[in-house]
Amino acid sequence: MSASHPSLKNDRLIRALLRQPVDRTPIWIMRQAGRYLPEYRAVREQAGDFMSLCRSPELACEVTMQPLRRFDLDAAILFSDILTIPDAMGLGLYFETGEGPKFKRTLQNAADIAKLATLDPHDELSYVIDAVSLIRKELNGEVPLIGFSGSPWTLATYMVEGGSSKTFSKTKALLFEDPKAAHQLMSVLADSVAAYLNAQIAAGAQAVMIFDSWGGALSTAHYLEFSLAYMQRIVDQLTRDKDGEIIPVTLFTTGGGLWLKELAATGCDALSVDWTIDIGVARAQVGDKVALQGNMDPAAMATSPAVIKAEAERILASYGQGSGHIFNLGHGITPDIKPDNVKALVDAVHDASEQYHR
Amino acid sequence: MSASHPSLKNDRLIRALLRQPVDRTPIWIMRQAGRYLPEYRAVREQAGDFMSLCRSPELACEVTMQPLRRFDLDAAILFSDILTIPDAMGLGLYFETGEGPKFKRTLQNAADIAKLATLDPHDELSYVIDAVSLIRKELNGEVPLIGFSGSPWTLATYMVEGGSSKTFSKTKALLFEDPKAAHQLMSVLADSVAAYLNAQIAAGAQAVMIFDSWGGALSTAHYLEFSLAYMQRIVDQLTRDKDGEIIPVTLFTTGGGLWLKELAATGCDALSVDWTIDIGVARAQVGDKVALQGNMDPAAMATSPAVIKAEAERILASYGQGSGHIFNLGHGITPDIKPDNVKALVDAVHDASEQYHR
Repeated sequence: MSASHPSLKNDRLIRALLRQPVDRTPIWIMRQAGRYLPEYRAVREQAGDFMSLCRSPELACEVTMQPLRRFDLDAAILFSDILTIPDAMGLGLYFETGEGPKFKRTLQNAADIAKLATLDPHDELSYVIDAVSLIRKELNGEVPLIGFSGSPWTLATYMVEGGSSKTFSKTKALLFEDPKAAHQLMSVLADSVAAYLNAQIAAGAQAVMIFDSWGGALSTAHYLEFSLAYMQRIVDQLTRDKDGEIIPVTLFTTGGGLWLKELAATGCDALSVDWTIDIGVARAQVGDKVALQGNMDPAAMATSPAVIKAEAERILASYGQGSGHIFNLGHGITPDIKPDNVKALVDAVHDASEQYHR
Repeated sequence: MSASHPSLKNDRLIRALLRQPVDRTPIWIMRQAGRYLPEYRAVREQAGDFMSLCRSPELACEVTMQPLRRFDLDAAILFSDILTIPDAMGLGLYFETGEGPKFKRTLQNAADIAKLATLDPHDELSYVIDAVSLIRKELNGEVPLIGFSGSPWTLATYMVEGGSSKTFSKTKALLFEDPKAAHQLMSVLADSVAAYLNAQIAAGAQAVMIFDSWGGALSTAHYLEFSLAYMQRIVDQLTRDKDGEIIPVTLFTTGGGLWLKELAATGCDALSVDWTIDIGVARAQVGDKVALQGNMDPAAMATSPAVIKAEAERILASYGQGSGHIFNLGHGITPDIKPDNVKALVDAVHDASEQYHR
């Protein structure tokens, strides 16, 4: 119950997502709780494998809080994985060292798809919901908590391919050869994601984000029909108002710079964009329909504080005057980055952005 | 000397590249001489390693001709590799089974870059020039011959990383931290590519294409400064008229859908586009400035002749009425494709495109 939660001390993120005035541009960093932090690696080792870390609300809470102790970040993001839903559907998620996520079982045909039922997040995913509650309590109103999920198309690629893929040949074959079964799969995933995000919101998530990591691999026709349409279906089902507070929704299709107008028309509040598009060009395209999150090339983080500062200033200037910009990288921070460089970025964004909010 | 060459029996490709009327939409396929053909695999085995195949004008000619014997293609493309230039600059290109291209030596710093000199293509790359002459003769005017090179940015990534990369962290660090050295590298590569393509044109290439395979990994700012600007520098130096025949130039940045206007403004004749952008949307953006090549998702080739036909028809309809479209995939054909499916595509494009040229 939100009555038991203190009100937000730092509401820059929520205000920027809703394009309300702010004093400085808020910043958080995708994978800010991650391997570049020695204290994360210590907890990760303690947990054993990656999924054990995700499945422990206490440990997930601990690693969620770690970057906030080091840096002046404007948001926390739930520590979890985008693939919890297919795992809860019984496909058996596991991680092998040095490789991406894998599934023990895959969807082989329309019959496998027909067997899938919409997930009850309070059943197999209660560990995530418990983590959200715990983190929200632990945050004590300092900064807002972001909940998230993978998009239906992105989840589907892992469920059909059994892991990461370069070409997505099996999943694309499904779209081309059995569009009816593909729509059935995306429908059950969309309804499951909506229920999952609503459960996160009920447990305390103050904003939610949908990661469409592989939407950019599709043709425009397939993207609109099989990825965007199902993010739309989720947006339509989400709790957008919780005890008088608006819950902003952010969509992020990696490589989705071609489709910003269509993404903005879903009724979401914000779009996250990768570094390929100029954020000023993106702003001109979406107008005052949505806020924009992004979009520094994560490769810049491997340089020096001076280069990072200059690049952050370039991006802030490109977005320009006024609210509606949430600074972030265009993709998750990589394990090789020095924590001092993250501090340089966070401080540069806060310092250099004041002028755009006068 | 072109005086010794017969005139072109099938000039659809050249006419479409120049947006002149054609009877049907021309088609060729990236990597049409490749591993999906059993006769290619036989020659490849005979040659030993991949570079020995590239270095033999006779074998390169043979594999260039192979797909033309099977399919009603409207162009031949020189069989070679995009990385011949860095190899000729002494970096030692090699291929390990199951992995991408690698270099024995890499560019480690500004001093390594300062040592590079503009390449004389008649020196280390005479095997390519000899292959062009031989293929042009062997083609006997049936269809035009396309020559090609990698783009400066794309060549630079391999020269700095030493092979393929997911993040291009070393090459991007060079752009961020030592832009002067990066410009020096791109300059020497651009001038080398221009000389190389001009030598291919002198030897008989009737159109040329620049493959910017990794431009799509850059931010817009870096793309314009370090990739596009140097493709412009090449376009400005190319032989555009050979014995009264125009030599059309095509630029192809994979993932470059955001930058079509800037690409079209270089003065090239055509842009190749990958499958992510709708070709009708691309046409609306470039207007009558350039022709467009593409853009079927190569994943469609793994389906059935009926699906391939429907997808080809969708793309032809999206481009719409009139010349200026060269049908192709949005990326190279993959080794798993059945040759019968290629025949289905080529025939579908010729059959279904007549209506757009009346």
